[in-house]
Parts: sequence; C-alpha cells; structure tokens
Amino acid sequence: MNLLLFSADERLDDGHIAIGGRRLDHLLHTHRAAVGDTLRVGEIDGLTGTGTVVAIESSRALLAIALAAPPPPKLPLTLVLALPRPKVLRRALRSAAEFGVRELHLINSFRVDKSYWQTPALGPEQLRTQLLAGLEQARDTRLPPVFCHHRFRPWVEDELPALLAGRRGLLAHPGAHPPCPRELRGETVLVVGPEGGFIPFEVEQLAAAGCAIVALGPRILRVENAVAALLGRAL
Amino acid sequence: MNLLLFSADERLDDGHIAIGGRRLDHLLHTHRAAVGDTLRVGEIDGLTGTGTVVAIESSRALLAIALAAPPPPKLPLTLVLALPRPKVLRRALRSAAEFGVRELHLINSFRVDKSYWQTPALGPEQLRTQLLAGLEQARDTRLPPVFCHHRFRPWVEDELPALLAGRRGLLAHPGAHPPCPRELRGETVLVVGPEGGFIPFEVEQLAAAGCAIVALGPRILRVENAVAALLGRAL
Repeated sequence: MNLLLFSADERLDDGHIAIGGRRLDHLLHTHRAAVGDTLRVGEIDGLTGTGTVVAIESSRALLAIALAAPPPPKLPLTLVLALPRPKVLRRALRSAAEFGVRELHLINSFRVDKSYWQTPALGPEQLRTQLLAGLEQARDTRLPPVFCHHRFRPWVEDELPALLAGRRGLLAHPGAHPPCPRELRGETVLVVGPEGGFIPFEVEQLAAAGCAIVALGPRILRVENAVAALLGRAL
Repeated sequence: MNLLLFSADERLDDGHIAIGGRRLDHLLHTHRAAVGDTLRVGEIDGLTGTGTVVAIESSRALLAIALAAPPPPKLPLTLVLALPRPKVLRRALRSAAEFGVRELHLINSFRVDKSYWQTPALGPEQLRTQLLAGLEQARDTRLPPVFCHHRFRPWVEDELPALLAGRRGLLAHPGAHPPCPRELRGETVLVVGPEGGFIPFEVEQLAAAGCAIVALGPRILRVENAVAALLGRAL
C-alpha cells in the first residue's frame, strides 16, 4: 500500500479522518506508525497529500489530513477485455487501476464461459476492492469506470463504433499480424480476447468496427501478461 | 497448455512417448482427446511438432511423435530480479519462461526478506514446474537457466560487470529518471528491484557497474506488472 485511500464520507467534523479494519492493520503492522508519523494519503476521486497520525485507539486511528497534489494522469487508454475467469479477472481489475487505464469494458465472447458472469468478483463491493488495491499501489485516487457487456454482437455492432469515434482501435490477437505499435499515444481502445482467442467471426466483427489487428510476437501470452505487456507501451 | 512438453527420457523404444499424471488429465479432460487425435507437442530443450494419440490406457496415453519446427526464438534479454516473495516468485518464473527471457538471475537486496531464500519454490523440482508452465503457454521448449545470488555486493562487484560485457544494462527504478527505451533491441540486461525498490547504495552500485537508470512513468507498479510491461518492450 503506497497510498492510504479514504473516502469523503470518512472525514470527521474536525476534518480529520478515522480509519479502521484492513487499513488500520496495515498502518500499525506494516508501517508501524505511531502518533506523530506522517504517511501518503489520498481521497478517493480527489487529491493526494499527507496524513499525520494524531491518535491511535483500539479500533481506529485518527489522521490529520493535508491534501495538495493531483494523482498521476490516467493513460489515454480504454481497455476492452473478454471476461476472464474470476482469478484472472481480479488481477486484471487491479492491474487496470494500477496502470491507469481510463475505462475498462468487460465483454462476452464465444470462449468466455457463461459461469464467469456469475462470479461474486463482479459484484460492486469486490470490484471496488480490487480497483482500490490497484490505485493504492500506483498512488492514484480515481476509480476507473468498469462496464459489463453480456452480449458480444449488440456491443460490437451498436456500442463499439461510438467508443472508437476519435480513437485508435487495436485488437491484440495471436497470429501473423503487424506488430503492435511500440508507443501508444493519443486516445486508444485496446481489445484483448479470452484464453484461446476470439473466434474468426468475432475477429471479423471487431475489424469491421474499426480495430486494427496487431500481434505481440510469436508467443502466446497469458491474458494478464499480454495486458501488462501492451499497457507497458502506453506508459 | 498450448504445447504438451515431454522429456527425452520419456521416449519409448518404438519412438512413441508415454504420458501420465497432470498432462494425461489435461489431455483427457481439457482437450478431450481420443485415439487418432493430434496435438502440439515439444521435446524439452528440443523441437516442436505433433503428437498423435495411439492408445489411452488407465494411467497413461501413448503418442506417436513427429517433430519438425524449432521453438520461437528467445528474447535477447537477461532478467535480473531481486528475489520476490514466494507467490510472486512463482509467477515471475512462469512469466520469464513465457516471455522468452534467455536467462534469469535472482539476487539479494536490502529489502529482500531473508526468509524468501528458504522457500521451496526455489527447489529444483518446483522451479522447473513453473518454468515448464511458462514454456507450455508460449509453445517454447527451452528452459531458461536460473541463477541465484545470495549476496548482493559480491554479485554486483564481481559478476555483474562480466554479465554486462557487450550488453546494455538497464535498471528500472521508480523516480524522475529517463523513460525506459520503448524498444529493447540487442542484448540487454534488465534489472528490477524488490517491492519498495533498491536502497540508494544498491542503486549506486548498479549504476557504477554500468546500468543506466530508467523509469516507467510516474506510477509505482507491482513487480510482476513492471516486469511484464518492460518485457513487452522487447517483444
């Protein structure tokens, strides 16, 4: 945790914040913070700054807050990901927030197991938890919006074209395609398929909507590594 | 598993191979293979090709093998990683093999917890298992060598200069450093520190040995994401 995140509703009347639970544990046992210590804090969807520990009680700590700096800028990048299995999804959510993806779209595909849409990891609480973990790592405060599209065809036909307006669309797909550009500048929509890849019909539809098909070399990478390797080009 | 790997000592007298255990499970339950089916196979440290199922017995399957193609080329990249905690180490080993790192060095650092060196994940069997998982994913056959250096200073003073001879050395370190090159071409040694980073003394020593200090933008990435983002530049 490189940044202690709090929400506006955790501010007390005197402007201090009170934190408990996981963050208190971390404060006491990892940071070994004592009264008078300062650490980096950030208000969710707000500024970053410093928090000074003013009191440690049995189930909470009180911090005096001074916020001044904006969080790091987001990447000009919208990530579209075929919904992965829950374990990979959790990591993908964390990573999307950590890398500074501006917006995340989870889509269906022939090779997405239907049961994946039922995972508790897509519930608002769990989803927020993973995103916050990514933000804490990267010292960011702004939660990226996450959109779920349960049907491929209506999404690719009715919604993707609007998403691509004024943006460059790239579909990363294994095979003998041109290499992915080494530098992703300008607003980009990056589409990554499921394990096993999009089926040919889906690739055709994505290309017809305006995505250029690119490859990442001759190796087939796991989804999480492909995503990180691609996002690394936008940093 | 995009490639079924076998070792030379699994060849039978008639040139077939016999596989059991995890690979047999995968063959039967994921690929749902039957007699007559073919799949991609590779001989560890050898060629890739096809295997045709000729018999399925209770605890093994027999495959007729035809090997023809070399595995994908390795990246011209030596990865040096401060030993991460075991869970991250396992993923790092898989990823190093998956991305095609030519050689992996695990080094000590002030911020490497001493207990990490005792993990069973560094035992030869477990280490090989993770590397093979990465090779299977990327359809590679060649195990990258992994070297452990338990003491930082003797390594940085006595061994790193030789490793850097004729190679470009890059130390990825958070901070206001020049950005990491977007294209890693030519033999490169890439050094990635522990969670929390190398301490200033270590950074000085790595720089004195010939590593250029580079950054990956304003965000602090988890080790596994930093590694994948950096390796993505060499693909």
